[in-house]
Amino acid sequence: MDDERDDEQRGAQTSMAARVRVTRLGGPGGGSRGDVVVVEEPLRVHVTHRGEQHLLGSTMRTPGHDLELGAGLAIGEGVVRARSDVLTVRPCRDGRGAQPDDVTVVVRDDLEIDLSKLGRVATPSSACGLCGRDEIDAIVAMAPAVSRDVRVDVDVLAALPDAMRERQSVFRRTGGLHAAALATADGRVLVVREDVGRHNAVDKALGFALLNDLVADVLVVSGRAGFEIVQKAAMAGVPVVAAVSAPTSLSVGVAQACGLTLAAFVRDGRCNVYSGEHRIVDVAPGVAHARV
Amino acid sequence: MDDERDDEQRGAQTSMAARVRVTRLGGPGGGSRGDVVVVEEPLRVHVTHRGEQHLLGSTMRTPGHDLELGAGLAIGEGVVRARSDVLTVRPCRDGRGAQPDDVTVVVRDDLEIDLSKLGRVATPSSACGLCGRDEIDAIVAMAPAVSRDVRVDVDVLAALPDAMRERQSVFRRTGGLHAAALATADGRVLVVREDVGRHNAVDKALGFALLNDLVADVLVVSGRAGFEIVQKAAMAGVPVVAAVSAPTSLSVGVAQACGLTLAAFVRDGRCNVYSGEHRIVDVAPGVAHARV
Repeated sequence: MDDERDDEQRGAQTSMAARVRVTRLGGPGGGSRGDVVVVEEPLRVHVTHRGEQHLLGSTMRTPGHDLELGAGLAIGEGVVRARSDVLTVRPCRDGRGAQPDDVTVVVRDDLEIDLSKLGRVATPSSACGLCGRDEIDAIVAMAPAVSRDVRVDVDVLAALPDAMRERQSVFRRTGGLHAAALATADGRVLVVREDVGRHNAVDKALGFALLNDLVADVLVVSGRAGFEIVQKAAMAGVPVVAAVSAPTSLSVGVAQACGLTLAAFVRDGRCNVYSGEHRIVDVAPGVAHARV
Repeated sequence: MDDERDDEQRGAQTSMAARVRVTRLGGPGGGSRGDVVVVEEPLRVHVTHRGEQHLLGSTMRTPGHDLELGAGLAIGEGVVRARSDVLTVRPCRDGRGAQPDDVTVVVRDDLEIDLSKLGRVATPSSACGLCGRDEIDAIVAMAPAVSRDVRVDVDVLAALPDAMRERQSVFRRTGGLHAAALATADGRVLVVREDVGRHNAVDKALGFALLNDLVADVLVVSGRAGFEIVQKAAMAGVPVVAAVSAPTSLSVGVAQACGLTLAAFVRDGRCNVYSGEHRIVDVAPGVAHARV
């Protein structure tokens, strides 16, 4: 099938991982080196019906198999149900050729679709409505550059995930909750919030700080640091983001553009710093760097 | 501060976990018993400005600290920046009293806000636009009841996450990817897809099956099974969902309403089945049940 072959080729040609610089702090084997992070970029999915193209929705995705993603979104939204509903799935084109972040699901003309339902799908949280690099640039521009000059010891930073975990409750019973915490640069935890959605836990913590007029230096998240986590920290003026798990290409890019410090894999007394490493103090940097 | 006290009370009064029945299969200690899952429900957040209420967005969240969540969403969307921008955050009210799943952030009259930006935020994936129990019921009604009568051995089911992991590539290098797979009832893996968003990985796998006209019996996901994962399986007619990690209250509810089998904590030769256990065959049920 042509669609599938095209998609496989796109998947093969598109890099799902991006190279970044990382500074490893805390413990042996530190120093600056190359690292690989997963790519996160927006995709717009359209439906073409009777010659007209309608926006179905947008999502922050890892490039590759984008035509399948478009078809899958059309199933989930109830636009198509069977192979015979789909004439083709193809990249959108403008005057400059194929648009890498826009695909359209071309459906048969006699398919009945509810146009009022289209355009409902959007990316999680505040990344919603993002439709391309231009809009990401717009959001980065909207976020105030965070220049606040705090310093956090790597030992203090690396202890925050455990401090957060000790204050979680529901997670232990259900294993189904993300957590977010806000802390000061000297390691005092201001608030811990849990939610089925990581972005909600972050919103709850940042909302607590705003309503209580507290100044937080570090946002800690229990899992990965995607784009929307870093964007929320920037909007709230929190200068340091610490994630227990991995960052993405876009979270690194947004952190750098907004002047934020982004530390990931923060655990076991160590962390990888992808942006703003001047805010993280390694207590024995000579030792760490000497072993590189 | 009144807002915060109200919110703490709401948080304390609202249960973040729900009791469900679960059937444990594979290995000793099996049988049916009570279990606890995290609650997942929609929240609508509004902004009240100069006496008018505008929808800021909706999100699938765990109830509790909803007023903080409303405030945090308003920060992330650039509507408010400081404590002084917010007059109060309160539950919305209708003729029957406070609405449990609607809050509004009341901002000062002289705050300049861009009304055109409101209403942009929505929940991840196809749950987007959900604004209350009525709309969830509508989506459940839209999903075809899945009555397909497949049988999967618990050993076959429990082996699928490892089979999926062996076919992942980028994840190993970056630690930042979710995976989804489709398989047949006898354990043959049809496709594995990876993405920074779990819902995207599912859409890619379901899109692959549609475009290649394949019938899949089991959808496997690398992490949790939230509402939108089960909804996507229902829309695609895949009768069994198997998650490596936990389910939510809403994913259990939707699976039961749509006639899907939902297995979670699928690992180490075992699983917990929350809905449609007739499709999962325990090879030694007598032994397992005898140990309850």
